[in-house]
Amino acid sequence: MEINKILANNFLIWDKLTSEEKTKITNAAVIKRFVAGEAIHHGSYDCSGLIILISGSLRAYMMNESGKQITLYRLFEKDICLFSASCVMKDITFDIYVDCEKDATVVLIPINQYKEIVDNSRTILDYTNRILTSRFSDIMWIFEQMAFHSLDKRLAYYLIEQSYNEGTNTLNFTHEKIANDLGTAREVISRMLKYFELEKIVELKRNKIIILDEKKLSEISEK
Amino acid sequence: MEINKILANNFLIWDKLTSEEKTKITNAAVIKRFVAGEAIHHGSYDCSGLIILISGSLRAYMMNESGKQITLYRLFEKDICLFSASCVMKDITFDIYVDCEKDATVVLIPINQYKEIVDNSRTILDYTNRILTSRFSDIMWIFEQMAFHSLDKRLAYYLIEQSYNEGTNTLNFTHEKIANDLGTAREVISRMLKYFELEKIVELKRNKIIILDEKKLSEISEK
Repeated sequence: MEINKILANNFLIWDKLTSEEKTKITNAAVIKRFVAGEAIHHGSYDCSGLIILISGSLRAYMMNESGKQITLYRLFEKDICLFSASCVMKDITFDIYVDCEKDATVVLIPINQYKEIVDNSRTILDYTNRILTSRFSDIMWIFEQMAFHSLDKRLAYYLIEQSYNEGTNTLNFTHEKIANDLGTAREVISRMLKYFELEKIVELKRNKIIILDEKKLSEISEK
Repeated sequence: MEINKILANNFLIWDKLTSEEKTKITNAAVIKRFVAGEAIHHGSYDCSGLIILISGSLRAYMMNESGKQITLYRLFEKDICLFSASCVMKDITFDIYVDCEKDATVVLIPINQYKEIVDNSRTILDYTNRILTSRFSDIMWIFEQMAFHSLDKRLAYYLIEQSYNEGTNTLNFTHEKIANDLGTAREVISRMLKYFELEKIVELKRNKIIILDEKKLSEISEK
């Protein structure tokens, strides 16, 4: 497919751009492929450009010196990876890592061309700002639950304990029940369970939670 | 003092603005005073506008249902309080609270006028974006240290233990020594101690750490 058609299908604000902006982006854009496990962005050291995901998935995470990781969010089809263009944003002093999780095809707008485009397009700047605050909102949610409520820890401990009590790795629990037991809201439990599921710690079925990785669960519960 | 002089002295990008932008801001700006303890911004419910701090200090924090707080950062003279204008930033889904910590005088640009100004001024938009990423960098640092390394907890436990061992509330320790004992970098310890100092948990003097609030320290260590 031609690159401007790919952009029209995957870059969500394409219709809002002027034809001059469209031409600039089309001329700058290159298709890239990543294989699962490949590093896409590693801390503040590299700055390849803006990435628009066409297929596959990417995972953004923090990592400490000993290699321990916390997943911050995941990106799927039509999502934008902003941190690979983070050198455009001044005053960012923290490092986020982005890896390819499932084989991915992306459109890359290389950093120099992206800089020039964003400097001259209020539409693109406003859009990337919205993405930035939305990513930060995801991160703040994790922060709040982990640092504040220790919800990851409490939920992990709860799942281990209940699975031990019931003598099975499959818990026939509603999210509502867990929320009541842990004194929080159903939405919060659902979101944290979803986080565990994406981390391959549990599998979620209707009113069922299947524990897949007891070791990881007990590591979290002992944090 | 006239308000445009106050703005010239305290709004750090004043010189970069066009005279039209200066006039708009001067006409919109109002002086406000807050007393210590007063709420300035409470979650996503209010949106008074952009605040430029002239004197005093403000504290930004997260709070859970039971009233437990985590300080995220503090604002001083010439700093900008962006979260009181956060309704301008779409896709922010988390709540930050801002209180006055020391009696403060501020310039407020009310939200409707601020919206109009930022919509038409790339200079102001770029500046507020830089502030936003800088605040988020502060928050990410706290997140990393708390959720990842449990550094607040480990440092609190360390200070209690050492003060017990030495039989005194005044520890003649360098930050370097503590960093070595806890297996981290001196800069990280200095910054966390500074955080404790602003929270009035310790007082820092040259190569001396005075424990002021043992109760708070032991709460942190038992988190």
